[in-house]
Amino acid sequence: MARLRRLVVERLMRYYRLLSDASPKRWGPTVTSAEIASALDIDPTQVRKDLGSIGIVGMGRVGFETCEVCRSIRAALGFDREVDAVLVGAGRLGSALLTYHGFARYGLDIVAAFDNDKKLKGRKVAGCVVKPMQALKPFIEKHDIRLAIITTPATVSQHLADRLVEMGVKAIWNFSPTRLIVPEGVLVRDEHISLGFAEIAHHLSQVDES
Amino acid sequence: MARLRRLVVERLMRYYRLLSDASPKRWGPTVTSAEIASALDIDPTQVRKDLGSIGIVGMGRVGFETCEVCRSIRAALGFDREVDAVLVGAGRLGSALLTYHGFARYGLDIVAAFDNDKKLKGRKVAGCVVKPMQALKPFIEKHDIRLAIITTPATVSQHLADRLVEMGVKAIWNFSPTRLIVPEGVLVRDEHISLGFAEIAHHLSQVDES
Repeated sequence: MARLRRLVVERLMRYYRLLSDASPKRWGPTVTSAEIASALDIDPTQVRKDLGSIGIVGMGRVGFETCEVCRSIRAALGFDREVDAVLVGAGRLGSALLTYHGFARYGLDIVAAFDNDKKLKGRKVAGCVVKPMQALKPFIEKHDIRLAIITTPATVSQHLADRLVEMGVKAIWNFSPTRLIVPEGVLVRDEHISLGFAEIAHHLSQVDES
Repeated sequence: MARLRRLVVERLMRYYRLLSDASPKRWGPTVTSAEIASALDIDPTQVRKDLGSIGIVGMGRVGFETCEVCRSIRAALGFDREVDAVLVGAGRLGSALLTYHGFARYGLDIVAAFDNDKKLKGRKVAGCVVKPMQALKPFIEKHDIRLAIITTPATVSQHLADRLVEMGVKAIWNFSPTRLIVPEGVLVRDEHISLGFAEIAHHLSQVDES
């Protein structure tokens, strides 16, 4: 399958989360692009185009088969294969991610954590022993790790990213508040929690005005 | 100013972060919608429409004044006013958010943390003493708090959200992995870290194929 653009991937993930949310048994066996669009504030044409880009074609007015949409998105986004990751920086945010249990349904498994803080050495977080930084390279090479999660302070993360790429890592999930530069072919995903706050700040400014 | 739709707010935030990123001195005094669009993988028409929705009009081929765009987005999103928030659930993720320093530039200040875990009682996280849950209601009422950040386990977060709304909270930033139902007029922002992983999983599945 051809590479999808980042915002297409993100929208597909939104569709997937919406349709796979079983708690309020919201969706029947079929769903229309208009229903998806309305729930997510996206144009229906965009929804059809995105689903079309991974080969899902609707059945006129009936719309799409909900199960097929979910299955196709899982396949397109690669959730059906297991991804083993290392985490570097076992401080507060790192520990939070190690403890978080929501990743398993997408195939992500954080198999080891590393930190150069001697106080953390040997400590167990969510069943994961924190290893010293010297152990990082041999671990990545031995287990053919392709994803690293960076939760270090911003000042060290670029140097760390350079080393990780040398060790063969193909994707970096960056939670440190800085932008990382990596060679072509390696993906960096910067996680900016601040996007969510934009919506909140705007809402509160509206509450003030009303 | 009229209420903006959620995805418009998020896109404005993306434009803001892009243009206010000073580190590589990337932007001159003016910027075109095509430049913004290309950097963010968004249609240029969408960029012009979003900026138009907050009253920013370009100057033909010259584009937009970079400073004016940043200033207008700050104003539209409400970043120029201080927002005081309480955090409920001072476990790993809660502590990570208390420690995180990236919120100040958007006007967000987490002024108190609450938890019913007796082991955490009185403990200081990032200069914030963790208070018992009984202290939540008086604190919110006394300080007229309108934003609560929820980092509790999913099982308790709906009950907590109900109580927070009764106490007068107008927005909830939900980091617990469940969907919350609140009355009209109250905003819930669900933070799903999993969106980022979608991009990574897709990238790694492409690496495998090549």
